[in-house]
Amino acid sequence: MTSERFSERMHGDPLPYPLLHVPISDFRDGQSVSQCFLVKHKTQRSTRTGDPYLEITLADRTGAVAARAWAEATHRFASEFSEGEFVFVHGRVETYRARLQVIVDSIRRLSAHEKESGQVTGFDPSLLVPTSERDPEEMWTEFLSLAATVEPAELRELVISLSNANKEQIIEYPAAVSKHHAYLGGLLEHSLEVAQGISGFARQNPALGLHHGLATAGALLHDIGKVRELENPVAATYGFEGQLIGHLLLGRDMIRDAARDITWPDERVPKLLEHILISHHGELEYAAAMVPKTAEAIAVYHFDNLSAKLNMVRTHIESDVEDGDFTDWERTLERRFFRGL
Amino acid sequence: MTSERFSERMHGDPLPYPLLHVPISDFRDGQSVSQCFLVKHKTQRSTRTGDPYLEITLADRTGAVAARAWAEATHRFASEFSEGEFVFVHGRVETYRARLQVIVDSIRRLSAHEKESGQVTGFDPSLLVPTSERDPEEMWTEFLSLAATVEPAELRELVISLSNANKEQIIEYPAAVSKHHAYLGGLLEHSLEVAQGISGFARQNPALGLHHGLATAGALLHDIGKVRELENPVAATYGFEGQLIGHLLLGRDMIRDAARDITWPDERVPKLLEHILISHHGELEYAAAMVPKTAEAIAVYHFDNLSAKLNMVRTHIESDVEDGDFTDWERTLERRFFRGL
Amino acid sequence: MTSERFSERMHGDPLPYPLLHVPISDFRDGQSVSQCFLVKHKTQRSTRTGDPYLEITLADRTGAVAARAWAEATHRFASEFSEGEFVFVHGRVETYRARLQVIVDSIRRLSAHEKESGQVTGFDPSLLVPTSERDPEEMWTEFLSLAATVEPAELRELVISLSNANKEQIIEYPAAVSKHHAYLGGLLEHSLEVAQGISGFARQNPALGLHHGLATAGALLHDIGKVRELENPVAATYGFEGQLIGHLLLGRDMIRDAARDITWPDERVPKLLEHILISHHGELEYAAAMVPKTAEAIAVYHFDNLSAKLNMVRTHIESDVEDGDFTDWERTLERRFFRGL
Amino acid sequence: MTSERFSERMHGDPLPYPLLHVPISDFRDGQSVSQCFLVKHKTQRSTRTGDPYLEITLADRTGAVAARAWAEATHRFASEFSEGEFVFVHGRVETYRARLQVIVDSIRRLSAHEKESGQVTGFDPSLLVPTSERDPEEMWTEFLSLAATVEPAELRELVISLSNANKEQIIEYPAAVSKHHAYLGGLLEHSLEVAQGISGFARQNPALGLHHGLATAGALLHDIGKVRELENPVAATYGFEGQLIGHLLLGRDMIRDAARDITWPDERVPKLLEHILISHHGELEYAAAMVPKTAEAIAVYHFDNLSAKLNMVRTHIESDVEDGDFTDWERTLERRFFRGL
Amino acid sequence: MTSERFSERMHGDPLPYPLLHVPISDFRDGQSVSQCFLVKHKTQRSTRTGDPYLEITLADRTGAVAARAWAEATHRFASEFSEGEFVFVHGRVETYRARLQVIVDSIRRLSAHEKESGQVTGFDPSLLVPTSERDPEEMWTEFLSLAATVEPAELRELVISLSNANKEQIIEYPAAVSKHHAYLGGLLEHSLEVAQGISGFARQNPALGLHHGLATAGALLHDIGKVRELENPVAATYGFEGQLIGHLLLGRDMIRDAARDITWPDERVPKLLEHILISHHGELEYAAAMVPKTAEAIAVYHFDNLSAKLNMVRTHIESDVEDGDFTDWERTLERRFFRGL
Amino acid sequence: MTSERFSERMHGDPLPYPLLHVPISDFRDGQSVSQCFLVKHKTQRSTRTGDPYLEITLADRTGAVAARAWAEATHRFASEFSEGEFVFVHGRVETYRARLQVIVDSIRRLSAHEKESGQVTGFDPSLLVPTSERDPEEMWTEFLSLAATVEPAELRELVISLSNANKEQIIEYPAAVSKHHAYLGGLLEHSLEVAQGISGFARQNPALGLHHGLATAGALLHDIGKVRELENPVAATYGFEGQLIGHLLLGRDMIRDAARDITWPDERVPKLLEHILISHHGELEYAAAMVPKTAEAIAVYHFDNLSAKLNMVRTHIESDVEDGDFTDWERTLERRFFRGL
Repeated sequence: MTSERFSERMHGDPLPYPLLHVPISDFRDGQSVSQCFLVKHKTQRSTRTGDPYLEITLADRTGAVAARAWAEATHRFASEFSEGEFVFVHGRVETYRARLQVIVDSIRRLSAHEKESGQVTGFDPSLLVPTSERDPEEMWTEFLSLAATVEPAELRELVISLSNANKEQIIEYPAAVSKHHAYLGGLLEHSLEVAQGISGFARQNPALGLHHGLATAGALLHDIGKVRELENPVAATYGFEGQLIGHLLLGRDMIRDAARDITWPDERVPKLLEHILISHHGELEYAAAMVPKTAEAIAVYHFDNLSAKLNMVRTHIESDVEDGDFTDWERTLERRFFRGL
Repeated sequence: MTSERFSERMHGDPLPYPLLHVPISDFRDGQSVSQCFLVKHKTQRSTRTGDPYLEITLADRTGAVAARAWAEATHRFASEFSEGEFVFVHGRVETYRARLQVIVDSIRRLSAHEKESGQVTGFDPSLLVPTSERDPEEMWTEFLSLAATVEPAELRELVISLSNANKEQIIEYPAAVSKHHAYLGGLLEHSLEVAQGISGFARQNPALGLHHGLATAGALLHDIGKVRELENPVAATYGFEGQLIGHLLLGRDMIRDAARDITWPDERVPKLLEHILISHHGELEYAAAMVPKTAEAIAVYHFDNLSAKLNMVRTHIESDVEDGDFTDWERTLERRFFRGL
Repeated sequence: MTSERFSERMHGDPLPYPLLHVPISDFRDGQSVSQCFLVKHKTQRSTRTGDPYLEITLADRTGAVAARAWAEATHRFASEFSEGEFVFVHGRVETYRARLQVIVDSIRRLSAHEKESGQVTGFDPSLLVPTSERDPEEMWTEFLSLAATVEPAELRELVISLSNANKEQIIEYPAAVSKHHAYLGGLLEHSLEVAQGISGFARQNPALGLHHGLATAGALLHDIGKVRELENPVAATYGFEGQLIGHLLLGRDMIRDAARDITWPDERVPKLLEHILISHHGELEYAAAMVPKTAEAIAVYHFDNLSAKLNMVRTHIESDVEDGDFTDWERTLERRFFRGL
Repeated sequence: MTSERFSERMHGDPLPYPLLHVPISDFRDGQSVSQCFLVKHKTQRSTRTGDPYLEITLADRTGAVAARAWAEATHRFASEFSEGEFVFVHGRVETYRARLQVIVDSIRRLSAHEKESGQVTGFDPSLLVPTSERDPEEMWTEFLSLAATVEPAELRELVISLSNANKEQIIEYPAAVSKHHAYLGGLLEHSLEVAQGISGFARQNPALGLHHGLATAGALLHDIGKVRELENPVAATYGFEGQLIGHLLLGRDMIRDAARDITWPDERVPKLLEHILISHHGELEYAAAMVPKTAEAIAVYHFDNLSAKLNMVRTHIESDVEDGDFTDWERTLERRFFRGL
Repeated sequence: MTSERFSERMHGDPLPYPLLHVPISDFRDGQSVSQCFLVKHKTQRSTRTGDPYLEITLADRTGAVAARAWAEATHRFASEFSEGEFVFVHGRVETYRARLQVIVDSIRRLSAHEKESGQVTGFDPSLLVPTSERDPEEMWTEFLSLAATVEPAELRELVISLSNANKEQIIEYPAAVSKHHAYLGGLLEHSLEVAQGISGFARQNPALGLHHGLATAGALLHDIGKVRELENPVAATYGFEGQLIGHLLLGRDMIRDAARDITWPDERVPKLLEHILISHHGELEYAAAMVPKTAEAIAVYHFDNLSAKLNMVRTHIESDVEDGDFTDWERTLERRFFRGL
Repeated sequence: MTSERFSERMHGDPLPYPLLHVPISDFRDGQSVSQCFLVKHKTQRSTRTGDPYLEITLADRTGAVAARAWAEATHRFASEFSEGEFVFVHGRVETYRARLQVIVDSIRRLSAHEKESGQVTGFDPSLLVPTSERDPEEMWTEFLSLAATVEPAELRELVISLSNANKEQIIEYPAAVSKHHAYLGGLLEHSLEVAQGISGFARQNPALGLHHGLATAGALLHDIGKVRELENPVAATYGFEGQLIGHLLLGRDMIRDAARDITWPDERVPKLLEHILISHHGELEYAAAMVPKTAEAIAVYHFDNLSAKLNMVRTHIESDVEDGDFTDWERTLERRFFRGL
């Protein structure tokens, strides 16, 4: 989809029809279902008697639920939709082995027409997929504005051309499968936080010896490899190269390939940019391919880390249901957080 | 000394007399010495025959050199000066066990009068003690300006009154005995880098949920305990409480004591500030007394760390004499650094 | 409650009425309930149709069970009791989502009168809350006897006055929320194990250079901060300062405040005691604010650690139901234990 | 130089003239010098009086010695030779600050003619540069023979063409600057140890599921990036890209570039080879860019590690001068080694 | 049982009667059961009303299932079988607390006669216990062949006599309770992988300085202590000495005891073999009693580790049911694996 | 030597002749030497001209100094003494490469007669070898008294017979080559500190569940393997088995061998004692062969560790020459120590 449509999809006007989507977190036994979902997984299996059935995971913004389509429907439905697509489901909620599941009467993908025109009652992608709260077009504009400040000109050209060549993914992708900024638009939101932070800090402290252009370029592009590492942004998973190579190196490949088309007065400049990408995890044990050896690489590491952690804190606070001043235990950072004044 | 005089001392006009200070790094065997030094260490010892002598370490901005005052002079000289004072020395350079040392003919502390009036030829504290390159008054003004933006008012009052009560030390102290910002004025320079960085970042990214006032107050004061941890800023060492308690807790004490005089609408505010101080090393193994559990504490940790590391990079690059694009090995961060474009 | 009553509560005579308390670990589906519990958690929620209900966790010495009070009873019951209180419950056990829960017909707190006089059939706090097996008064006497041996006199005065000022909490508090000595009276039992151990060891080995008074004082008070870190000893949780500051520093605050009222011939003595408190976890990664730098601090660390581990071993052996020479896996120390000869 | 000449240089017939090279390890004060060396470092400096001089490090197989060329000779000599070249030196050995150094009377590079024809008495590269004890042509033949067993054909083609394109460096380079196989021919010797080991192991144990072709190709090429990481094999140092990018990624670049020219029936094959290169350090903290996720990558990691460690053991035993069954302390593996039966 | 019978049991001809064993992984609610199992655990318990019952875990190659024998049958059945025995069970499958369990109508051990003669329909040990896919006699022959190549003769004698003395266990035991080669015959299969690998590698690379005989002997025997560490190979658990002493030391005991009967020309040889056993985990934190200090011990460590890891990879791939190129998460090595070309 | 004589040697009456031993720490250039030393190392070497010479390290309690015996004297002297012996030396002190060394005119071992009768002026072993400050006989008596309290009788028998069989070494050996209690008598002093500490602690705290006899036996014998690990107590080094097997396992061997001669009512008792020995380093990374799994093993680990650390603290404080409240940096524990009140 184009970024324009994506933008509308995530931040369009209020829907002109009544919302009828029941959040998955509110499902209960016996209820009937007639609404849209995102398909997270789809597997075709067989019972012991040889009858085929479909195991599906349906998701919306509030969670996920197992679903099954039995016997006669399997063949028909199996070709009707794929993982990562929006579907319309008729069915009912049952309890199986102490968990809820949806027994599917019918399931089909939404057509492009339906997704765009509001014809399907209750369809709203932002109810089905977590998305950034910031406006994507506004973020993209800020991204390009910051790129325009990069010096020297060759580096600026690289940033702008590479960004434009991957514009749609940069706007749409999450910054991670889970952990932080794990929602549509998260990659752009996160890259901006890092790049604006570092740009401001470099200008504020000229004595620190940060090269503004290099640091800003590195910050804007530090996670660009995510668009090759991950597949299917609405239900992100690691692709083949994502598993074997990883976004640090895939991002460096993109820079290396783009740098070939540019004439560099100083050949070291694109290498220094490559270095920022492969070292931005900061320490070897955090999967940096190299420890950062330049002031700019050290700075990108810190701003990246800070942006990620603050996002984790905010996300955890929002999703937590405990009473009191502190959240429950957060497993990645292994602590409780103060909820804020 | 007052900060006004300190300011002049470090950033005064060019001296009206010819500079005659020979840097220690340029000393060589046989040369005679008639100039000022900083005394780093002083120990009284005896030879096997029972004759007393003084072992002294003299320093200037370029390094340190061993010195000895023999027999008859010992008693007379020993009471003439102390560690951490500026002295005037007559003597000569000799080689002993393959190292240079100064044989002292006479040594005495500079009087307050001499230090101030330029009467001693070649006396310039900035030649003897490493100092920040930034103007202390300008830094102090920026410090107070930033403090003035802190909300709520009670927190602002605490920051300003505590800072004013320790104004001279904040302006004069180094940020550490070694490692980073280890020069006069380093504490103020470092605190500003952290606080301006975090203030700008918090305003730039309102969605991150950083409380601007709390984060800025924490940043300005995060190392305030250094003024109790360290003794004698011109030749800083750890004092008794510095060794046993440490600047994180000593700084928290200062806040805790100051907070008692203020009426807090929300009693949690000063506790949250205390938390920033005791957790600003970020991880337990880096000597944080507690892991940071608030967004503001996490942010102070990252900006503190970034300011320190970039200062280490800059300092190492400046002191390194290797040729080529990369410095020699830096032992704290365990890597070589790129020297810069 | 006073320590006298607490002592009786935990170690009173055998109850004069038949015990009717059914341990939670013996509950099963369909059984009716009419007995006392400790309330661990209480939350008010609403069903999808807007009807309020109470989610409660009831506990006794053998475990915990979920409970629900429905619709009409919610408003009435909600104000009848709080977390950490003893309550009397009528209800029945049901199976919900493959787990047992109690459907509450009525619930109310026990009055002070009921708790003391044995009027409520089957009420015995020691059945509801894990408590130390040692007599609290006897432990308190041993605690004060040991404190009386501390030299110099000023240090002894500090230990005794601070202990008396916190007598009730020292007697009642657990030593931790979980992990070790996590039962009423555990703080006192643990402090005694550490202090008696170190006192005996110091006297036995004069050549080791342990200062008996300092080591004993440090051992007696090393966990004193727990009484500020934790709230509600019968269902202990971390309070606001417990979360943000921690018991090492809170305990040091208590010493620092108490030390102000005493005239110290040697000002270093109270600082050395503070150092023991903030360093008694022994290593930075175990949350010591400083590594121990005195012989006494090193010794307190080792006896504290040993007392805690042996308590964990004993507790795990007692709670384990495996056959054979070895227990099942213990998760904190990550091993199985030999059950003993 | 071509590999043929390199082969001769390292393994030629016994020299037809008397060897007059005095090993640096046998130098002593006062001795005169007229022989060949390898230049490790060369720096031009000035005395305090402004006179220029050259600081040089001369090396042979037994060690290194500082050398100085004074005043009038500096300008003339400075352009006569470069780092990493063989030179002929006239001079004398002196003691300076308790260390030996060579005072240079004349210094000049050996001409190609001299190096080849044996005209310079005492010139033998194998005396000046540590080299593999194995014959390079024999190793190269084994390397190609093993490459010829790789299946599928496209993978074999990649290995052979990439190896041939870098034949001279593969034959000449050391496997590392220090640590293991740090001598001329070491890269080839090490790559063979790893590849022959893994090939034999894979064929011996078909049940282990190792893909012979992929594992062998990965083993042969696992360190190919060394030829881009390092500069000047006779006195190896890290180059610009070596410092910033590292041999794991530079080797993967070589494979990625070579793979573009080949039509792959299964596109995953070259990616799996890339994965072996970037993961062959085995663990993130050992600077692997990714943990090995294939059986072949795991196997290459283990054989690489084993070959390196056994080489370190052998090298340490050979260089050690202790008596008895055990060597002195080895600092990388942090132990003593048994010298062997 | 003798190894001959074990061999037949695991690798006999196809059974002459129809297989009626329903794999546990295919069980479902309501089905009746009349077949053989392995007993993993057996515990006798009582209901609250005092009625005894048996809690049993039944296993076959595909998994395990809980079983209960009620009231009247308990006493009778309890003495009919033990943990680790093969039993014949009549009963039915029920659902209890959302899990399947078998209600036992009758249970009895298989007699030796039944196990050998095929009289019990559907009895096939290889269906009940995971076993190596390799033929045990063939492996044993290879083991002895390799032992026969060991030099010097005294070392060969030790290997052969110790192996023959433990022949049945070596052939039958698994290499571990879980983790790797955790099936009957696994110890022999694993020891062969390590020993053949190291023998081939040592012969292939004479320059590496590996002593072939010592390395091969160490590899063949490195896990010999498992036969004392573990009890009951078909349902392996750690015995008393296994828990307290461990297989590294128990294996060394076996060598130490066997070495006493041999006259050693060089007394160091058996000590070097002992060293291989106690150091073969390679690093202290992996439970090596000593780091490997000989080339042979280093090599055994690496081949042991490689054999174990490749077995884990293969086992995980085989048991994994995910689609796509990569398996699901493997918890010991903490990664996903590529499934293979 | 017998322990009686050793006792006298270390703690005899004041010498009846004037002490003429000049401590090595007081040596200076040009002084003549005629006194006794301990020989730490002896190596025979050759000059470039083929002349043999002896490199010797002479030691006394205050340090060590290099010594050389030249040309003609070499052959004669080389057979006159061995490492670890006391010698009488005539010679003179010279400076060589900025370090002092002794040029030996004559060197010969002291005869047994000389060592005992005080005929050699200035000979006093306690000046040459660091020794415990405690009386060895008194310590041995305490050791046996504690052993006599061990229950059950079989365990007591094992402790007493094994101790008596190794009496002389237990009395004479140091507890380590360096680190802690590294002086003659250190093993006994350390074992007593651990055993008395644990015995008292176990009796003081019956509720902790420590088996007094097992814990005391384990403590008394925990380092017994040192007498096999180390060679030559006056200049201790690791022997062949010390290097390859280590004192934990060698000590367990001694127990295992001794336990064979005893009839054990409970066979687990000697195994539990073995477990204490092999686990007393507490954590795998500290070279424990197994983590402690019994209360007694955990206790021995803590008292061992505490005794060692306090000894390191005391030793460092005594050897340190800094002024002020704190010592200089201690490298094993990586901190400064407070010197004590």
